[in-house]
Amino acid sequence: MDTSNQPLSVAVLEDSRVLATETVTVEQKHAAYLAPIIERLMATSGVKPADLDRVVVADGPGSYTGLRIGVTTAKTLAATLNIELVGVSSLQTLAANISHENQLVAVLFDGRNDNVFAGVYRIHQGVPTEVTADAHQPFDQFLETLDKAHESLIVLGDTAHFEDRLVAQLGDRVTVLNPVFSLPQATQVARIAQQLPAIKDVDGFVPRYLRLTKAEADWQAQHPKEDGHSYVEKI
Amino acid sequence: MDTSNQPLSVAVLEDSRVLATETVTVEQKHAAYLAPIIERLMATSGVKPADLDRVVVADGPGSYTGLRIGVTTAKTLAATLNIELVGVSSLQTLAANISHENQLVAVLFDGRNDNVFAGVYRIHQGVPTEVTADAHQPFDQFLETLDKAHESLIVLGDTAHFEDRLVAQLGDRVTVLNPVFSLPQATQVARIAQQLPAIKDVDGFVPRYLRLTKAEADWQAQHPKEDGHSYVEKI
Repeated sequence: MDTSNQPLSVAVLEDSRVLATETVTVEQKHAAYLAPIIERLMATSGVKPADLDRVVVADGPGSYTGLRIGVTTAKTLAATLNIELVGVSSLQTLAANISHENQLVAVLFDGRNDNVFAGVYRIHQGVPTEVTADAHQPFDQFLETLDKAHESLIVLGDTAHFEDRLVAQLGDRVTVLNPVFSLPQATQVARIAQQLPAIKDVDGFVPRYLRLTKAEADWQAQHPKEDGHSYVEKI
Repeated sequence: MDTSNQPLSVAVLEDSRVLATETVTVEQKHAAYLAPIIERLMATSGVKPADLDRVVVADGPGSYTGLRIGVTTAKTLAATLNIELVGVSSLQTLAANISHENQLVAVLFDGRNDNVFAGVYRIHQGVPTEVTADAHQPFDQFLETLDKAHESLIVLGDTAHFEDRLVAQLGDRVTVLNPVFSLPQATQVARIAQQLPAIKDVDGFVPRYLRLTKAEADWQAQHPKEDGHSYVEKI
């Protein structure tokens, strides 16, 4: 499942075969929609809870609320069914829409105030592998990183705001694809996870927010001794 | 929508923005599933029948029954709502999963008896354009065509049966991707159709079967003077 931004995507797979998948982008009502969609896709697929042996979630970066809903749902399923849990980067998930071997793919989510959550991947043996780590950073800084690559690249994600500046800086080295390729797909989340080990500490698993909320930053400033305990745990 | 083979895929878009999409592969119950899925995705998207201005269907090649259900549903929607109808090749639909500019993409569906429905496309300005026309042909003949291309290519579709022979003949020039990329997506059907004109004769629109059923072939042999009238019309 991927609920890390406005789109909500769920898929049920048997090994590498997709049984059923649904992606909805219209409203960010993940708390209301996620469980019923999981339930319906499982019913359509003839898959019962006892048949599941792994749950995979896009664990960030993205919207705080979206990530919490997805990760909490995934943790609950993994813990109650006693099955494996795997987390996949939400940026890597988009890069997985690209099939071209060795292609450089930059993925960005709008982080407001001209910041982005962004990472650069290269398709290696069909799977996006990290070139620069996912990070929250000023868009200009990310653009500088892309410029240094001296290579043609595909940009995915929230490109609409940034396309003009990408093209101005990178010229015809940059390709912005049809928005269909920037749609997160739970089928790709599952595909990436096939190569990943299960998380050992399900209880301790948290989203990779890559940025503190203002409330968290304020709380941490006021509680310097609480190092190692998260705002969410304490509050 | 795409119901041309076992998978069933439906998407609702507003221009190039995907609002909601669902793809189910488990059973070929298109007659029972298609209308309810269209209805639910429209409800999820907040789209009413009167909001629709175009219906797009993958019109073949593929399964006879699947194609008839999809094309009949699409024609009925177009005629009753008085909106545009567009047909897109089911092979081209799969090729549209590939984003790499200038890439050669071969797509094949198993046609039994070592025959395939197959076509070759090249990604041009982001859209698969025809290199060899979709045709029903012996697999060996299609393989010969691919061999003559002297170029690296991606093969999509029902590759499982044919992968060994593809690799034996074409060596490392051929790439068979993860099955996720061979999943038909109604989002891609819609994307291709953005560049296509509406069909003028909605009533006369029929699937591109590319092969006669045995019943049709027998009937045509017995009715040589009925040229120009189809078996389905007459029966």
